[in-house]
Order: sequence, then structure tokens, then C-alpha cells
Amino acid sequence: MKGYVFHGPGQAAWEEVADPGVEEATDAIVRVAAVTICGTDLHILKGDVPEVRPGTVLGHEAVGEIVEVGSDVRTVRPGDRVLVSCISACGRCRYCREAAYGQCRGGGGWILGHLINGTQAEYVRVPYADLSVHPLPSAVDNEDAVLLADIFPTAYEVGVLNGQVRPGDTVAVVGAGPIGLAAIATARLFAPERILAVDLAASRLEAARKLGAEAVADASEAPEQLIADLTDGLGADVVIEAVGVPESFELCTRMVRPGGHVANVGVHGKPATLHLEDLWIKNVTITTGLVDTRSTPTLLRMAAAGRLPTSQLVTHGFPLDRMEEAYEVFARAAETGALKVVLGGPQREVVPLPAA
Amino acid sequence: MKGYVFHGPGQAAWEEVADPGVEEATDAIVRVAAVTICGTDLHILKGDVPEVRPGTVLGHEAVGEIVEVGSDVRTVRPGDRVLVSCISACGRCRYCREAAYGQCRGGGGWILGHLINGTQAEYVRVPYADLSVHPLPSAVDNEDAVLLADIFPTAYEVGVLNGQVRPGDTVAVVGAGPIGLAAIATARLFAPERILAVDLAASRLEAARKLGAEAVADASEAPEQLIADLTDGLGADVVIEAVGVPESFELCTRMVRPGGHVANVGVHGKPATLHLEDLWIKNVTITTGLVDTRSTPTLLRMAAAGRLPTSQLVTHGFPLDRMEEAYEVFARAAETGALKVVLGGPQREVVPLPAA
Repeated sequence: MKGYVFHGPGQAAWEEVADPGVEEATDAIVRVAAVTICGTDLHILKGDVPEVRPGTVLGHEAVGEIVEVGSDVRTVRPGDRVLVSCISACGRCRYCREAAYGQCRGGGGWILGHLINGTQAEYVRVPYADLSVHPLPSAVDNEDAVLLADIFPTAYEVGVLNGQVRPGDTVAVVGAGPIGLAAIATARLFAPERILAVDLAASRLEAARKLGAEAVADASEAPEQLIADLTDGLGADVVIEAVGVPESFELCTRMVRPGGHVANVGVHGKPATLHLEDLWIKNVTITTGLVDTRSTPTLLRMAAAGRLPTSQLVTHGFPLDRMEEAYEVFARAAETGALKVVLGGPQREVVPLPAA
Repeated sequence: MKGYVFHGPGQAAWEEVADPGVEEATDAIVRVAAVTICGTDLHILKGDVPEVRPGTVLGHEAVGEIVEVGSDVRTVRPGDRVLVSCISACGRCRYCREAAYGQCRGGGGWILGHLINGTQAEYVRVPYADLSVHPLPSAVDNEDAVLLADIFPTAYEVGVLNGQVRPGDTVAVVGAGPIGLAAIATARLFAPERILAVDLAASRLEAARKLGAEAVADASEAPEQLIADLTDGLGADVVIEAVGVPESFELCTRMVRPGGHVANVGVHGKPATLHLEDLWIKNVTITTGLVDTRSTPTLLRMAAAGRLPTSQLVTHGFPLDRMEEAYEVFARAAETGALKVVLGGPQREVVPLPAA
């Protein structure tokens, strides 16, 4: 089969690799029908995630069809259309027993396209299939579903739920890329008073408005002053960090009100400065997290009911074998306006997509 | 009257000051019977709390007798024996309505010995007396009660409650001074599996053992390795920072397990480094806070029932007019072994105290 193989920082190619097969009784093999590219994949290509070994097929988000299962797989069978979650779960360890699947100690967690071959390929082996794939309702098409593999549960769990967004809150989302936009969409489920989106790109701020941000701010123009003006000098109840650089995190800690929450979602490669000399007295709660995907079944039901604006985040579509071009478009998002890029399997035509 | 007056960094004296009087209808005047010195007072003397103006009487913890009340005070009257809380509360602002008294926007919060004259004096004016003093049950003597003005509610609310200590947890307390010791004592109320105390001073670690820490560690000898050994490599469920320097905070973030809590209690004068490149994926919750003293009524009931080891923290006693000597003993704790120093009012003799 073909897959997108990492060969070290700055090097990757869509090339022939060995077909995966069932290795453990709990494995499933999935024929990939739709897959997407994550900002984390770009981090890997930059060399920021050193545990990814050269030779690894990248990707941790997919929709596809089960083609083979191991003897211990009970809940899916060949022919089933499934979502492949970015998180695999052994189901037996201390963390899985608390539904903290992202921290699985039994060989799961974020492994696809990280510690083992991933989803940016024609086929993928999914360990612990019973807890790592989700059968898809027919009401959710592939393009919508694939956004529930990672970005929607990540934005919802690590941003909105960790941040404890409540009705009437002022929420600031710093970074209006795909994760930030999914955070805006899912924060709205809790009826905040207002959402302020912060980004450097006008196109992303426009997307944020379309998804329901009542206010937007250019990140270079003192958004901490804007949030103060909006909140009688207090600051936001919840600030969600969806960038992953120290400056952005530090901005979040200046935008939060006393007693408020900063929920970090960004993938960071460097330390940040925590201004405890200001924050010690402010009753601030800061959370970090890898998604557990415990919310995925709920999000799937909401998507089936038409309650999630998943497809609004998809700006570009490609057939699977144009992976390298798709990476190029996604990596150059500032020029291309790309949000989520979906690769629709080898049979799919390029779909003309709405402008960002 | 006499009071302990701050005259700028490094300068303070027990000297004649004007008697306080009722200024607002919600004020009470309290004759001080017992008062203590807080680590925060030492920070003020070092110049770390620049908003304290020269001429301010220091101190934010006291027990005493109401001698006068303004016309709007309803719940206490002259002759009542009361605890003066370190936090005053207007009771009307957004924060007070949520019992977040420490963040009071109506003129309360931490004001005594900070923005207005404090308790290290023969008399003190307490604003918003109805919500800022607590009538004392006769079963709690002055020396025990004065520890409930700040350190016990601070350790309990900002350390144990913010850290969400639960039965079966492994709790690490970094810093075994008075706040850390009170954190150990109140963490035990939640039946943790074990408490590890970390400090540089053997005498403080010994005090920690007496208060119920099952394990102790020298802070200079890689306590992160000890906690890993105790927890199958995972780290502590809850780590409480009770020092207030960057190195200590950073140690706490290395000692916490994935999914765990770091509760900062320390008063910090400098920023710390937050290693988001490690922590972003670990589902860690970090909290900061000034005490609200919402738990004070509960702690008073527990003290009356003999359930809090308050007096075990008192190592030295002085009459009120030996304030300067008491400061000296408290500031030189490494030599003197001082934990809490209680000044017992001008009528009180120096009490021989148990060794630390």
C-alpha cells in the first residue's frame, strides 16, 4: 500500500510501505476512506516530537471501513464504517479505568502516527480496536466525522471542559486555527455571554465570527486591553490557549480574571514564563492536557443531530494520493487560507471548497 | 496606643501610633489579645509587597475583644471575643456573593496590615466587621484561634481544597513551614494514602512527621525521584507548594503525576518557568490563590472539637510589647526553630514553649 512516511525532520514522502496486518488479537485493520492533517503533524516534521522514529507513517485521524479484526475484537467487524480516534485505549490500566484514555499506561494513548504507523495511508492497524474506533452513524458523513477524530474532542475536552465554561461567561480563545475554531463552536454549547477570538490572521478571525465569536481581536493589538474593556476591567472567565508558543500562553495569563481559568490546548515545544509574582494572589486555575476522547460518542451523537459545525472548518479536499500537495497547502495556511484539509481516499475527486 | 509600624524596606518599629476609631458604620474596633507574625510580613519588610505604604501598622491575624462597633454592625457587639480574619469582606460585590472574599472588589480582601493599619497593635479597626470577624467559641483558646486567622484556612483552601486531595491520594507538600505543616494537618482530613513532606530543615521535617507526614525528603536530594519510587514512577496526585520561590514551584511540577494537581500556596516575588514542553500533554491542573476564609467557620468548629493540631505549630510566645524580639526570632527561624510566634497581649507572660 501507499502511506505518508516520516524520514526525519523536514523529510517525508507518499510512498510504498508494507500492508499492515493483525498483530495482536485486539487489533483491527481499517481501509482509510478519509483522513486529515493535524498541526501536530507539522510539529513532527519540524522535529519537535523527537520520539517519532524515521520510517513511521504519520497521521492520527481517519474514517474508514474495518477489513479485518483480531480474535478478541468484540464490538466491530469487517464492513463496519468507523471513526479511528487519535487516542487508543487498552481499557484496563489505571488511567483507562478513569476514562483518562489519553494517559493510557497499557500501550495506548496517542500512539498512531507517533509511536506506531498512523492513518495517512491506504490502510492502518488500530490496536485495542474495541476502545479505539467508534462505529459511525449513517447521518454523519466522512468529512464531518474525521473532524471528530481529534480536533473536536480536543477543543471540547482540553479547552471547554477543562476551562469549565459556564453560561454567562466571557470566553477568550487565543488562536483561531482549527482547534481554536472548534473551541469556539463547542464553547457556545454552554451559552457563554460572549466569545472573543484572538489571532493574527484576518481570515481566521472572519472564520471565528462565522462560528459564533461575538468579538475578535488582532493578537498584535493588546487584546488584554480589549478584554479588560469588555469586562469592567476584570478579564475573561475562561481563556483557551490554542497556539502553542510561550507568548500566546503568557498573553492568556494576562487576559484571565481573578478566579478564572486558563485552559492550555496548544502543543508546546518550549517553556513559558509563569508570572507567579502576579498570579499567586489571583486564584487562577491553569490546565494542560492531551485529549482523552471520552467525549467522542457524545460529539458523534451531536454531529448526527446536526448540532456541530464540523464541515465549516474544511477548506480543502484532495484524493488520498495527493498527500504531499495537501501537506503543502496546510503548512502554508497563511497564504492558502487552509483550516482543515481532508483527503478523501483514492476514489474521491478534488472538491471545490468554499473560501475561508 | 502602640503598634508595629512599617517604615519602608528593612525598617519597622514598635512605637506610639494614634488610637483607631470607628470611621465607617460597618467598622468594629478590636482590642488585640493575641496576634501572630506571618511569612508575608517578612515579605513586606523585604520590600516585596510595594503597595504597603510606610507608616502602615503591619499584621493581619488576631484574636481580641470588640470594644466599639459602628451603627451598621449587626452580628457582634462590645465585649464579644472574636477572631479577626486576614480577609475582610464587603459582602456585596460580585466576588463576595460567590464567597470569593479574598478577591473582594468592594474595599475588602487582604487589606489589614497591607492597605490599612493591621493587627500588630493594641487595637485594630476592622472594616466590614459582620463578615470580617468571627465570634469565638469558648472551647478555642486565643493561641489556637489565632492560627485560624490565616494559616489554617490558607493551607486548607488554597492547598488542600484547590489541590482536590482525595482518599487514597499521595500528597507531596513542598515546604514544611507553618503553611506547609497546616497543609499536612488538613490534608489528613481527606484520608490520603500518604503525605510526603519536603524541606531543607531537619527540624521542620521532624515537625511534619509529628503532624502526620508518613514520609519526608530533603529538598536538596532529588525528591522527585523519591516520589517516583513511592508511586510506581507516576508522581504525586497532589503537590502543594508552600515556599514561594521559582525553584520550589518548578520542583512541584516535576513531582506531579499525569492528571494530578499542583496547588500553589506560596507568595511569590519572581516569575517561574513553566515547562509546557513537558506539561502540555500531562493533564496537569495548576492553581494559585489568596485565601477566601470561607472555611473559617468550619475550621473553628473543628478546632472547638479538638480536631485540629493548631497549638502544635506554636513554638514561641511573647507579650505584645516584645514585638521586635518576636520578629527577630521568627525571621531567624533556621536558627531559632520558630514555626508560629504568638504574641499574647500586654498582660501575657512569656510562656515556655515545647521544642519544635
